[in-house]
Amino acid sequence: MLTKWESEQRIIRLQTELRARQIDGALIIYPIDVYYFTGTRQNATLWVPAEGNPLLLVRKSLSRAVKESLIEETRPFPSSKEFPALIPAEAKTIGLTFDVIPVQQYQYYGKMLPGREFVDISAVNREIRAVKSAWELERMRESGARLCEVFRQLPEFLRPGMRELDLAAEFECRLRKAGSEGYVRMRAFNQELFQGLAVSAATAGHPGFFDGAVTGRGLSAASPHGASAEAIAPGTPVLVDYTGIFQGYIVDMTRIFVIGDLDPELRRAFDTALAIQEQLVANLKPGAVCEELFLASAAMAEGAGLARNYMGAPGENARFVGHGVGLELDELPVLAQGFKAPLQAGQTIAIEPKFVLPGLGVVGIENTFAVTEGGGEKLTDLPDGIVSL
Amino acid sequence: MLTKWESEQRIIRLQTELRARQIDGALIIYPIDVYYFTGTRQNATLWVPAEGNPLLLVRKSLSRAVKESLIEETRPFPSSKEFPALIPAEAKTIGLTFDVIPVQQYQYYGKMLPGREFVDISAVNREIRAVKSAWELERMRESGARLCEVFRQLPEFLRPGMRELDLAAEFECRLRKAGSEGYVRMRAFNQELFQGLAVSAATAGHPGFFDGAVTGRGLSAASPHGASAEAIAPGTPVLVDYTGIFQGYIVDMTRIFVIGDLDPELRRAFDTALAIQEQLVANLKPGAVCEELFLASAAMAEGAGLARNYMGAPGENARFVGHGVGLELDELPVLAQGFKAPLQAGQTIAIEPKFVLPGLGVVGIENTFAVTEGGGEKLTDLPDGIVSL
Repeated sequence: MLTKWESEQRIIRLQTELRARQIDGALIIYPIDVYYFTGTRQNATLWVPAEGNPLLLVRKSLSRAVKESLIEETRPFPSSKEFPALIPAEAKTIGLTFDVIPVQQYQYYGKMLPGREFVDISAVNREIRAVKSAWELERMRESGARLCEVFRQLPEFLRPGMRELDLAAEFECRLRKAGSEGYVRMRAFNQELFQGLAVSAATAGHPGFFDGAVTGRGLSAASPHGASAEAIAPGTPVLVDYTGIFQGYIVDMTRIFVIGDLDPELRRAFDTALAIQEQLVANLKPGAVCEELFLASAAMAEGAGLARNYMGAPGENARFVGHGVGLELDELPVLAQGFKAPLQAGQTIAIEPKFVLPGLGVVGIENTFAVTEGGGEKLTDLPDGIVSL
Repeated sequence: MLTKWESEQRIIRLQTELRARQIDGALIIYPIDVYYFTGTRQNATLWVPAEGNPLLLVRKSLSRAVKESLIEETRPFPSSKEFPALIPAEAKTIGLTFDVIPVQQYQYYGKMLPGREFVDISAVNREIRAVKSAWELERMRESGARLCEVFRQLPEFLRPGMRELDLAAEFECRLRKAGSEGYVRMRAFNQELFQGLAVSAATAGHPGFFDGAVTGRGLSAASPHGASAEAIAPGTPVLVDYTGIFQGYIVDMTRIFVIGDLDPELRRAFDTALAIQEQLVANLKPGAVCEELFLASAAMAEGAGLARNYMGAPGENARFVGHGVGLELDELPVLAQGFKAPLQAGQTIAIEPKFVLPGLGVVGIENTFAVTEGGGEKLTDLPDGIVSL
């Protein structure tokens, strides 16, 4: 359970950022954002004035929100007539997260609060969340340890001839029994992920909508990501890339399995991924610039003659090598071209150098790390090597 | 795979609705909407002029979209400079689905297309989708049959003392092996669902954010829905409410299981749910008014002395008894107070009368039906009775 102190610190950080931008208050209405600040993920709207006490207005379930909420003023959502009186008239400029709020919601609040100016606080909201507290780092370590336990069991059920889908089902079954909450929250407008990917051989290399190196073929054009019904053959790389979600905190990791032996070309690409990870982790320190980390990794891929295979199918390569994780799978920072921000201690990042070799398969590594003065702290502490069965 | 003819019919329906409203075209950008009209769920934007040929502009993956798309003009997404030239200057009024499009997307297209007026076509979009074609009804029947196969297996693995979570994990494992695609699409702003619910006894009656009769306690305040870590005791109702998703098409059903005997009060409530379902199904015909169906069901609950237990924990009751299903779990129509629209043949609706008896548990029934001249056609064709083990 989130603590009162955590909630207070988060709200103070938001209020500081609001004041620095001359914003008079924020309406937090996206569910996971409400949870982050209040400790309850019910259907509710949080009003955070730039100064003073926040107010949580609950639609459903009120009784549950009252039990969980760390906000002193937690009340039923008022009628549209009563709502405006709860937002002080002095609050002329109000922040909303334009990245996730549908136009209908925006218009609804605009109608209830005429004469106010709404401004986008998406970036501020994401930046606050990117840096984890000591309490959150403990949650992330716990999530990492529990996800590793499931990966450790994989040799018990990976069998030649089973479909990617069967491997996914067996993995997901154990993941759920280990307590993973399953629903993967993503913030980007057009992204979807069902827990993770169990994909193999050339099928794994199918390009897709997913903003990552690997999408998988999936089961139909309607759900074109993750495991397919293809059978897993000996001698081909089986890429298992899954999230584990515990108390809302997501970690993300990938390991490669093979029944029998792997093609030397794939092994060499895998070793390059490990070398890239090693260099990135050594530099995962406060002050390192996101973009530079990515460019350095891309240079290593190029040095190994694998530029066109790096982070995607040739011609559809993603230009990133790592993404923030926490309550959402796509948090800040992003180790990608165009991201000039320096890392900060306490950020948690999934690093995932991967290579797509058309016709052969996909290999690579992924671990979730925390940024520390001494470099990346590995939160998914399991050996990185290819597991041969 | 979606057929060319299906895609064409859908686009013709949209164009007809656009013209009837003097809207010059629509930008379809929400992924499942893009899939519905084009047959591909890649990251893409579909331009549908009120008259003339549609155009699909693809961000990622272009190669996959080209393979799957049923739109003749399928091309790479252009630069922001080139984009405006692709949307005819005569198109002054452009439709967008304000229900799901974030403000940032709205502003992005507004900036690229200055001087155009954007209008909300959410309702039109949902209404088109609500009525299924013969091809879609076949998909829904197939989804129903496959989900029933998984429910049929439940007695093989339900054991006293297992946690709700273990039951969920075992069910989900078989559901995935049966080919369910897993990711449940919901349109409402603040809703989330991970496949379904396996909940029991008093724990099942926990109120929650979910816009349904049952939410379950879940595993943490961050993921407050679905199975909890509570053990399943003999003599208590085990409610298994799951979605099955095949080629994108969702069906939704609920059955009650019990190890041993069930309290007569719960049995009586269950029988009332069956009677309500029977009456609703007899009236699930074109022309029946959604709201009236709900009110008649509520009157039956009241007649049985169960008004306060109907469709939710006492005091937090939902005012609906059925919801459209298809590519999303929360499609139109809704059998709820305030919905005055008449049913149309080809709509597919999950009917789910349920009763929450605090301290005892939750009982009820849910099946997915198609609206036909002869009343509801049951798509989830499995016996309705409580399964005693």
